[in-house]
Amino acid sequence: MDLQDGSGQDTIGLDSLILVYRDRRRRWLIRPRETPKLHTHLGILDVSSLVGMEFGTHVTTTLGDDLVILRPTIEDLVMKASRKTQVIYPKDLGLIVVKLGVHSGSRIVETGTGSGATTALMAYLVQPGGMVYTYDINPEFQEVAKKNIARLGFGSNVTFKSGDSRLGFEERGLDAGILDVGDPWEVVRSMKEALKPSAPLAVITPTTNQAEKVVAKMKEEGFVSIESLEILLRHLEARVGMTRPSNIMVGHTAYLTFGRTTKQTEAAPTPSVTEPTGNSFKPTEVAQAES
Amino acid sequence: MDLQDGSGQDTIGLDSLILVYRDRRRRWLIRPRETPKLHTHLGILDVSSLVGMEFGTHVTTTLGDDLVILRPTIEDLVMKASRKTQVIYPKDLGLIVVKLGVHSGSRIVETGTGSGATTALMAYLVQPGGMVYTYDINPEFQEVAKKNIARLGFGSNVTFKSGDSRLGFEERGLDAGILDVGDPWEVVRSMKEALKPSAPLAVITPTTNQAEKVVAKMKEEGFVSIESLEILLRHLEARVGMTRPSNIMVGHTAYLTFGRTTKQTEAAPTPSVTEPTGNSFKPTEVAQAES
Amino acid sequence: MDLQDGSGQDTIGLDSLILVYRDRRRRWLIRPRETPKLHTHLGILDVSSLVGMEFGTHVTTTLGDDLVILRPTIEDLVMKASRKTQVIYPKDLGLIVVKLGVHSGSRIVETGTGSGATTALMAYLVQPGGMVYTYDINPEFQEVAKKNIARLGFGSNVTFKSGDSRLGFEERGLDAGILDVGDPWEVVRSMKEALKPSAPLAVITPTTNQAEKVVAKMKEEGFVSIESLEILLRHLEARVGMTRPSNIMVGHTAYLTFGRTTKQTEAAPTPSVTEPTGNSFKPTEVAQAES
Amino acid sequence: MDLQDGSGQDTIGLDSLILVYRDRRRRWLIRPRETPKLHTHLGILDVSSLVGMEFGTHVTTTLGDDLVILRPTIEDLVMKASRKTQVIYPKDLGLIVVKLGVHSGSRIVETGTGSGATTALMAYLVQPGGMVYTYDINPEFQEVAKKNIARLGFGSNVTFKSGDSRLGFEERGLDAGILDVGDPWEVVRSMKEALKPSAPLAVITPTTNQAEKVVAKMKEEGFVSIESLEILLRHLEARVGMTRPSNIMVGHTAYLTFGRTTKQTEAAPTPSVTEPTGNSFKPTEVAQAES
Repeated sequence: MDLQDGSGQDTIGLDSLILVYRDRRRRWLIRPRETPKLHTHLGILDVSSLVGMEFGTHVTTTLGDDLVILRPTIEDLVMKASRKTQVIYPKDLGLIVVKLGVHSGSRIVETGTGSGATTALMAYLVQPGGMVYTYDINPEFQEVAKKNIARLGFGSNVTFKSGDSRLGFEERGLDAGILDVGDPWEVVRSMKEALKPSAPLAVITPTTNQAEKVVAKMKEEGFVSIESLEILLRHLEARVGMTRPSNIMVGHTAYLTFGRTTKQTEAAPTPSVTEPTGNSFKPTEVAQAES
Repeated sequence: MDLQDGSGQDTIGLDSLILVYRDRRRRWLIRPRETPKLHTHLGILDVSSLVGMEFGTHVTTTLGDDLVILRPTIEDLVMKASRKTQVIYPKDLGLIVVKLGVHSGSRIVETGTGSGATTALMAYLVQPGGMVYTYDINPEFQEVAKKNIARLGFGSNVTFKSGDSRLGFEERGLDAGILDVGDPWEVVRSMKEALKPSAPLAVITPTTNQAEKVVAKMKEEGFVSIESLEILLRHLEARVGMTRPSNIMVGHTAYLTFGRTTKQTEAAPTPSVTEPTGNSFKPTEVAQAES
Repeated sequence: MDLQDGSGQDTIGLDSLILVYRDRRRRWLIRPRETPKLHTHLGILDVSSLVGMEFGTHVTTTLGDDLVILRPTIEDLVMKASRKTQVIYPKDLGLIVVKLGVHSGSRIVETGTGSGATTALMAYLVQPGGMVYTYDINPEFQEVAKKNIARLGFGSNVTFKSGDSRLGFEERGLDAGILDVGDPWEVVRSMKEALKPSAPLAVITPTTNQAEKVVAKMKEEGFVSIESLEILLRHLEARVGMTRPSNIMVGHTAYLTFGRTTKQTEAAPTPSVTEPTGNSFKPTEVAQAES
Repeated sequence: MDLQDGSGQDTIGLDSLILVYRDRRRRWLIRPRETPKLHTHLGILDVSSLVGMEFGTHVTTTLGDDLVILRPTIEDLVMKASRKTQVIYPKDLGLIVVKLGVHSGSRIVETGTGSGATTALMAYLVQPGGMVYTYDINPEFQEVAKKNIARLGFGSNVTFKSGDSRLGFEERGLDAGILDVGDPWEVVRSMKEALKPSAPLAVITPTTNQAEKVVAKMKEEGFVSIESLEILLRHLEARVGMTRPSNIMVGHTAYLTFGRTTKQTEAAPTPSVTEPTGNSFKPTEVAQAES
């Protein structure tokens, strides 16, 4: 159950998820019970015989090919859950985690559930005491995601809700929100109501038009610290004496928009200052080019 | 103590770290006790009068300027700790978190400590039961980092060690490692010994030459799934009818190199396969373009 | 007159434009007659004494600082003409030159004139027999550009026209067009009429919204081979053993949109094929990933 | 002969190079005489019947598919000549043209010839009076390039030389140089000798290691204004209401290094300044962020 967990068991069990690794392009995510023998064009691997071995072990196929049995990281699991049609990338998820401060105990809301890839990563991070409330308007989608999440052992940290998040979320006072739907501007107000004041929100949109519209809506709803950005990842082929960037790269995944909710008050409190202190000290400014 | 924590208190205390927010360029990270009055060119803010208010509240300076009092996120805190000379960026840290699977309970090792920015983020994520072992050859550097970490309330999740990590770490069986020193190739072997087999390692290097050398060393030490990459972040100025990318961007921070340790065996076990199953099923391949 | 020209004179004249070069940040573009003595914080340079020397010569200031006297390239001249408010970048102009095939004898149309930077480069390239027709709705702008162009000696290859290009150009059968105005979609039809069928058009727009609108208009007007793109340039700090990209870079200048005019016919001629040849040969396909 | 030329004939001849255009991926570069009938999966096109028509005309295949007959631009021709193994990209060539100031009458030297793609573009630009001296150590390579150049009608502006450019070029006083070989640092001195003082040099290298070495060598040989850079081109899918960058892009082609030769003197002349002028005027500084 906690194989996906860095502090989990170090030996391979019959139900362990294992990553059979040949190279970055040829990797198989399987379980010994489900796939006792792995047939590849590099030969056959007797997977059931791996039970009891330590993760990280080198093994050999019937054709003499060298493979390594790795414990899947959360990245391996998330990328596996991700459907090709709407893939979420580690480069984007990583920044979302840091910007939202997702960690053990966090209570966050996400819509839509999609393939459950983002859900899985968030569930992994909020363990053991936190909760991911994930909404999707399409109950069918959630069936796949539910199965994925259960298979990965994160079921107790995810609450699936089927419904139209434009009409509102049922939770209040949440720590952070993730918005990944086609018309995110329609859900900004629901997010504002579900999140605590000062909480961060992340919005994922493929197009510039969507980013434009959601930023306008967030301003309207009183969000501050709003920023839109995109992340490019390029591999470096680092070889002695002949290092160069990879020839092909992913050109675009999504624009990420971030903001913070604020408490809307009838009349903003105006702290009165009776006596200015004599010496104006230089306040500690936060480094500006923050990302 | 847990102000930095999403599940922390919702009202401002005398010792709360608060982020006084004007816009993305003008933000102040202070505590009411230490800075009872904040003098800015936008007027004076009576910080002590904020105690008891809720985070996310709008306030006004003596000159009538609107400010918002935000609860600092871990990003705000990490960027603040980061010294300008060797800044670590959220875009890079985020991917490291996902690739290393750092979460509650993780036991990770880092060298060097530097300003403690990376240390702080990792400590935040491994709470409550995990531990960050952070080494630095320069005890003076660690004094600053120690103070930062204590101030942020992460002291119980960080173990500071002063020493030359090229000679080895004292821990064994750790879940993940972060290598951020000038000559990382000299520490790869120490990392291999301290990490469990199959554990991920992240190496941060500013130059291509360093990436080249550390990749070669990691191959030599039996690491697999090695990849070097860089991340570019560009802001989008999303305004209705006039959306365009920002004119200026950070061009480079660091190359990130990742790999997984393996168990070095005298003789690799060769699982024998006595009878190939009749029908060769298609193994579940992990999506390839994973980042 | 042809100092800017690679085949020009090799010795410095009293009216030569010279580039006094200290490093990439400290460079002065002057003429000996206009600036007989150059006062810098690196000392004074007796510019008038340079007359008769060869370009490329090292000289010394009164404070002993080493400078080099370079013949300005067209890039130096264009960047100088470019106003800071609406700078055109060599990276963008270079691709426009290649895509438009601008060369000796080309007859091209440009609107608006702006600072005359693009005009200057195009005039340089169409020499000696070509012509750049440059339109601007603002006659004041053209005065500055006219002076710049005359000063660089390109006057005989540029025809300045003041007027609203949305209403049409006076020329017909031109080889290529450059569109650099705020509402380029309003000028696409004028361009189609002024250019020969099959001629390439380049459109320069800062925002995604403008690119979106101009692409739609070009499709409507029968343009083919339409593509929008952006170019990023990043410097590499190449130093032995410590090579890395520059920390700061320009994040955005403009989107470039290209297309080709077509001949609109009442009824498209349909070449009849009476007898298919027996063996279908493989046509020579143009390499696809063309930029 | 001057079909490639913007000022060339507007009607299609039997020996005209024509670009049969379907979309950005399906384009054929042919001549009516050589390919009287074009067989595609979109139907057959009677190419010979196009003779006498105007470029830019829409035509229809036997299967009713719409095609446009375009006059090939120099970009189309260059990309066609470019071999897949060592492709040169318009984005890179464009900047080289601007940085080197290549135009009508320029005398430039290039090594190696390679596929002749760069040679073709340069020949196109130096017409009618200029010359491209192109060296290659491999006479076989030059045979292909020679055929390409002749086919495009640029023969009179290219001089092919077979030989080892590390040992020197035969020309002197050239306007600009292009270095595109595996060990460019070995040819820097030959370039210095062949170019006039102050002339620009462009070096094309795939790896950071090569850029590092050639920059060091150029410094040693007295070059100034040295800069290394890379250019990234990303397409924008500009569609009304759903604009976003392309998902896939070319991640790397080459690093470009530029520099200017200087005149090496036994003793640098030191212009004496007898009387500093009273008022130090502000010299006209060239805009710094020049690309």
